[in-house]
Amino acid sequence: MHTLGIINQRISANKFAPDTSLSHTVIEELVACATQAPSSFNQQHWRFVAITEPQDKERLKAVAYGQQKVIDAAVTFIVLGDLLAHTKLAETLGRSVKAGIIDQAVVDGMVGMAGQMYANPAAQRDEAIRSASLAAMTLMLAAEAKGLVSGPMIGFDPEGVKREFQISERYLPVMLLAVGYPAPGNWPRKVRLSVSEVLTYGTGESLA
Amino acid sequence: MHTLGIINQRISANKFAPDTSLSHTVIEELVACATQAPSSFNQQHWRFVAITEPQDKERLKAVAYGQQKVIDAAVTFIVLGDLLAHTKLAETLGRSVKAGIIDQAVVDGMVGMAGQMYANPAAQRDEAIRSASLAAMTLMLAAEAKGLVSGPMIGFDPEGVKREFQISERYLPVMLLAVGYPAPGNWPRKVRLSVSEVLTYGTGESLA
Repeated sequence: MHTLGIINQRISANKFAPDTSLSHTVIEELVACATQAPSSFNQQHWRFVAITEPQDKERLKAVAYGQQKVIDAAVTFIVLGDLLAHTKLAETLGRSVKAGIIDQAVVDGMVGMAGQMYANPAAQRDEAIRSASLAAMTLMLAAEAKGLVSGPMIGFDPEGVKREFQISERYLPVMLLAVGYPAPGNWPRKVRLSVSEVLTYGTGESLA
Repeated sequence: MHTLGIINQRISANKFAPDTSLSHTVIEELVACATQAPSSFNQQHWRFVAITEPQDKERLKAVAYGQQKVIDAAVTFIVLGDLLAHTKLAETLGRSVKAGIIDQAVVDGMVGMAGQMYANPAAQRDEAIRSASLAAMTLMLAAEAKGLVSGPMIGFDPEGVKREFQISERYLPVMLLAVGYPAPGNWPRKVRLSVSEVLTYGTGESLA
């Protein structure tokens, strides 16, 4: 379906059809789409832990304020951001040198800049959230295009999620993202602010 | 064009055809798409300052480490996140009550929860980045679907951007996003980590 139609039809689902599943092939197609998102210096902070098994869903629900969609959705992704992606940048970008896309001098320059920009933990956190969110949005639109629905969640205990699912300190849980088939009872899209309320030209002075 | 094709063909452009422009109608269609993104409690943290005029582009370039794409792209959006979106939530969600989508009790519950979750400035910042990034990714894919190219930038001086463009303290500059027509010389997409490197099932233990 046309991209603009997909963007405009998507809602955030809260009700998912239980007892449904997605194949690993479909899950991996969705993640492959997500990894096409851009990231600062192509650092690719995103990681995904797919929760598909009943016992794992129960463990996730327990650290996600009891949200039922974790149980009912075919899969819930724990979307992570790598706080230390900059430390791997020489290797990550080295693949693009091997592919003939950029040359080593470009990589050396980027590694130097990223090392300075992301020495600071606050900058690491900002970037992990930014990159993981770009990937998550791409995944949600890919899911919609495949006839699935998606529901992002920020209501969870990040420390509990890390502990329950053996996630190391280098990864920040950025959101949970349920994907699957809809059940009846989902709300229509909630009303959005109008374009004139969120867009100005040349100055931010009039933004309320 | 099909959404999955758009996701897979998009690159981050660095070279834009100079002396091109986009109508306000097109710019507003792009922003309308961006506002379809999801956000926590539908807070809609996103705001956009569109920089289209030559003198404004020069001012933006000066606080964006001299990046030429700010000059050449038809438009560069300063993508902002509202740090205080939770304080407007009763009004924002009230529109969905008027539209018959949710009832007032739901709004009251959400306003209470959001007030607690976003009392903390660190949580405000995280959420502003998350929401603005979801909107920015949607805008990039909408632009691609319209035959345009896009280039997100995190290389800028946020305080300088706020000062030059009269942006109040309540808004966090989350990224700059150039949109327009491509010039020759853009890199192909840089190589991505493989799905098996970024996805695990049921545990994050094996993530490197």
